[in-house]
Amino acid sequence: MPQFLTAADPDFEPRFDAFLAARRADAPRVDAVVAGILADVAARGDAAVIELTERFDRLRLTPDTLAIPADEIDAAIAQVPPDERAALDLAAARIRAYHERQLPGGDSWTDASGATLGWRWTPVEAAGLYVPGGLASYPSSVLMNAIPARVAGVGRLVICAPTPDGQVNPLVLYAARTAGVDTIYRIGGAQAVAALAFGTRTIAKVDKITGPGNAYVAEAKRQVFGRVGIDMIAGPSEILVIADRDNDPDWIALDLMSQAEHDESAQAILITDDAGFARDVAEAVEARLQTLDRRAIAGASWRDHGAVIVVRDLAQAAALSDRIAPEHLELCVADADALAARVRHAGAIFLGPWTPEAIGDYVGGPNHVLPTSGSARFSSGLSVLDFMKRTTLARMSPGALRAIGPAAATLARSESLEAHGLSVTVRLDRLNEDT
Amino acid sequence: MPQFLTAADPDFEPRFDAFLAARRADAPRVDAVVAGILADVAARGDAAVIELTERFDRLRLTPDTLAIPADEIDAAIAQVPPDERAALDLAAARIRAYHERQLPGGDSWTDASGATLGWRWTPVEAAGLYVPGGLASYPSSVLMNAIPARVAGVGRLVICAPTPDGQVNPLVLYAARTAGVDTIYRIGGAQAVAALAFGTRTIAKVDKITGPGNAYVAEAKRQVFGRVGIDMIAGPSEILVIADRDNDPDWIALDLMSQAEHDESAQAILITDDAGFARDVAEAVEARLQTLDRRAIAGASWRDHGAVIVVRDLAQAAALSDRIAPEHLELCVADADALAARVRHAGAIFLGPWTPEAIGDYVGGPNHVLPTSGSARFSSGLSVLDFMKRTTLARMSPGALRAIGPAAATLARSESLEAHGLSVTVRLDRLNEDT
Repeated sequence: MPQFLTAADPDFEPRFDAFLAARRADAPRVDAVVAGILADVAARGDAAVIELTERFDRLRLTPDTLAIPADEIDAAIAQVPPDERAALDLAAARIRAYHERQLPGGDSWTDASGATLGWRWTPVEAAGLYVPGGLASYPSSVLMNAIPARVAGVGRLVICAPTPDGQVNPLVLYAARTAGVDTIYRIGGAQAVAALAFGTRTIAKVDKITGPGNAYVAEAKRQVFGRVGIDMIAGPSEILVIADRDNDPDWIALDLMSQAEHDESAQAILITDDAGFARDVAEAVEARLQTLDRRAIAGASWRDHGAVIVVRDLAQAAALSDRIAPEHLELCVADADALAARVRHAGAIFLGPWTPEAIGDYVGGPNHVLPTSGSARFSSGLSVLDFMKRTTLARMSPGALRAIGPAAATLARSESLEAHGLSVTVRLDRLNEDT
Repeated sequence: MPQFLTAADPDFEPRFDAFLAARRADAPRVDAVVAGILADVAARGDAAVIELTERFDRLRLTPDTLAIPADEIDAAIAQVPPDERAALDLAAARIRAYHERQLPGGDSWTDASGATLGWRWTPVEAAGLYVPGGLASYPSSVLMNAIPARVAGVGRLVICAPTPDGQVNPLVLYAARTAGVDTIYRIGGAQAVAALAFGTRTIAKVDKITGPGNAYVAEAKRQVFGRVGIDMIAGPSEILVIADRDNDPDWIALDLMSQAEHDESAQAILITDDAGFARDVAEAVEARLQTLDRRAIAGASWRDHGAVIVVRDLAQAAALSDRIAPEHLELCVADADALAARVRHAGAIFLGPWTPEAIGDYVGGPNHVLPTSGSARFSSGLSVLDFMKRTTLARMSPGALRAIGPAAATLARSESLEAHGLSVTVRLDRLNEDT
């Protein structure tokens, strides 16, 4: 059974705090193993990557077969049924349209002192996307990582995707081609992150690594952070549904289960202002858990991490939601816009009864790579900005230097940085000579 | 002597590669020590912070004196000379004006399917700024970290600044007050980062930690990353000046030394298309190194990390600059705008002869917290965006769900995520019943 909490109960606060604290349990420490793999790949390059792939994925590769050749991709893609192809094309078009609106603009202006200031954005040259193998090999995640990179204007875009025992997912390859990925390497784990970060003879170094992975991949990303850019380190996925009584309990139950079925460590939470509705949803969940294909996973997630919270009113629901800072927030209430306006911390908000979270996983348009485990308090979902960087620009006119240079010299002196000050004052002296 | 490289020499490429590789030397590993400090503060809170401060800073504090009291701040600020106060006020106003232009806008639109999509930006609730003690205690850095946070709308803004032996820097306190910092804790090192990340009885947890620090502070930020947000982990500071012969060699020498005087590990590089000018600048540097107050530091930096590179033309200079991806790039050439347009990777660009980099350190307006060690290839200087996060929004109308829901259901099936598909199809079934 999931946790049932009622905000009016006298012990609600400590129980809610304990519930929040439990979500933040740290991942297993695999630092030393990962550090060893990174050092090995940095030192031995392709040879290390090939040995580790044979050991972990039972797959023998050579430098020539690290990348999946075009004809093999063609053959796999030919197996993709037309309806899946069409669905993926629709998803790609919608994701592209959304992300194109995120392209940031530069700026340039001249202020009263005569200083011309501004900034401009440019794409990173090369990005590597990690795509997990096995159960978590999701074509939709390929689109969500690759399309923002392409929209940003990234020059070279590669994927690392492990193919244990040589098994490829044809729809992943189709998604990669649709999104404009240049090369797909069939390698995974910390060794793939290392190859992307350090480069090998066969695999050129990239500037940015994104995409989800297991504990080894996450730790490898953490360790190469600084040498290359990374996206957030993803934790277990989570959904918070805030729903009033005017909803079909089965719809809400399925929305909760759509999160729970991802992973036993996923988390699904319902907040409602109606205790009867809370019971109805819990019952609907139990009914669905009788038949769902992934009932073992979804049931474990619901039992171990699920929660149903009954609140006094929707204002209280919004306040609790901000303490959770959910990755996905579904608002199934009469005035979803008004409730959304009260929420400050959430990765993505789904408004109204016709917007199940699964729409956002595939075809809505916004990115489904979102901050987990409360990190929506300080970070954002993946976007075009993750594949770009900003350069600031400044040009002083002689008049501007005269106006603001003396203040710089004063501050340089206060920080005991003489050359800083001199670099300004020798120029000011010249200007004074000239007048 | 710094390195002299000439692009036309046959061994230029391997020498330039070696030069780039040397810049990326990793910082000393202090992982285990830092992990111990973090665990201690997480477990024992204030008591651990107080003990560690006594050990490292020779300063005895109590929970009541962790924060510098207002009257002590008042007394320190009263010592700040009027000219420094005025200079800092000017700097603050200019930095604020620049960063206010960075405030990002939200967006919302309804597409052809009837889906309403968009995003909005909100500030983080609480941020903590790390301000180093001792030599690197720079009032200007307080402004550069605190003002973007305040412009972003951060609710609670605190500083941690070690005060070894109780020594405070009055201008740091004045900068903190000018920038609107709420509380200043006189603690530093990994224990300060831990207090900000985990919270103690006295020091409330923050959502985001920014600011430079020594190897322990940097490693602590790396270890708490994910639990809280952090800015980039800064390496040694660097400047690249691209200058043609129509410059005063002494000006360029001072610009190079303004970087070199920061720190023995700082790096100053000149690229020029004129071998005679290269020699003149090198001589001017040697002359300045006879008299500069910080000649020991600047000389060591120049000798161990400095470089003078003679190129064929400015196009080659731009290409080499992109391989360096400098933190600071000064363009002292006839058409600086044209050269800037050829550069893709730089933290900040300073255009023309009247814009010494030191202007950007203090009063230019753009941020001086910039990506070091080549990380301008994938990251940006500190900005208002570092203190905000984006929430995506989506609302499907019944018509939109009808239009795009079936594709979502198809993709859910392809990923074997049954509940995802059902959460869509139960709604589609209802729509079909209704018509």
